[in-house]
Amino acid sequence: MRILGIDPGYAIVGYGVIDYIGNNFKIVEYGAITTEADEEMNSRFKTIHDDLNTIIERTGPEFMAIEELFFNSNQKTAINVAQARGVLLLSALNHGVRIFEYTPLQVKQAIAGYGRADKNQVQQLTKTLLNLDKVPKPDDTADALAIAICHAHSYNPRVTAQLT
Amino acid sequence: MRILGIDPGYAIVGYGVIDYIGNNFKIVEYGAITTEADEEMNSRFKTIHDDLNTIIERTGPEFMAIEELFFNSNQKTAINVAQARGVLLLSALNHGVRIFEYTPLQVKQAIAGYGRADKNQVQQLTKTLLNLDKVPKPDDTADALAIAICHAHSYNPRVTAQLT
Repeated sequence: MRILGIDPGYAIVGYGVIDYIGNNFKIVEYGAITTEADEEMNSRFKTIHDDLNTIIERTGPEFMAIEELFFNSNQKTAINVAQARGVLLLSALNHGVRIFEYTPLQVKQAIAGYGRADKNQVQQLTKTLLNLDKVPKPDDTADALAIAICHAHSYNPRVTAQLT
Repeated sequence: MRILGIDPGYAIVGYGVIDYIGNNFKIVEYGAITTEADEEMNSRFKTIHDDLNTIIERTGPEFMAIEELFFNSNQKTAINVAQARGVLLLSALNHGVRIFEYTPLQVKQAIAGYGRADKNQVQQLTKTLLNLDKVPKPDDTADALAIAICHAHSYNPRVTAQLT
């Protein structure tokens, strides 16, 4: 299965597309959608949506795995991340890509086997699982690839079929 | 000028389209986009986006006036309202509709002349200004019409032209 992992944001959206076939991973592409701080916020949402549309159309993922949002104390940032996440979800929905959402804890557990793994451990394991020379930069891209791996390790089509 | 007012949400999105010509208001249409609680959340975002696209294509507004978000203690609700607001903004952006954002205080001041007007006063004034027989229901629709009026009373093309 082909999985698009997304680390949502409005300044940087990390993404990574991987294939998971017979317990093996293969990188399709990865990177980040970035928007400029001096661009109007609403225009940044449109850039994010348009760029993700292009990535989806180019790579044709079956699934999108995206991090769940948990708000912190900065409500202005939180509102904008959530608004950006809305337009990211819409890109997937408009292209028939199935969406699965994971918490940071689920991502850590799926990759490191336990929820208290630190960021560096998760990044090193992501690099190894994907057979990369080094940890992808920025962190948002590494996180997006980790979320995609989490989906590969978590998704059980037979269980899901019973639920739907 | 034709203005689309939006009260953002994910269960109910109030909307109202009005014309403001020579200090007079004329109603074009108003109502609410509603989504079902038993529908999957992401699917609700797509419904909201698709329905607003249809409204914009039918009525052709020049401006969208939308309420700014302020978060309360229920973070789950807040995240979903913000995500829905993202896809509403995107509808306007994709149709070249210019977006203006107003706080609840600005809406009250623009309609009642002072910020401590209560909800009922704002609704009665909205009804009177728009020459309606009764206050539109649900409240979200009445609020959306109030936001549209706020834009009509606030927008000064000459000042804006200096800023851009």
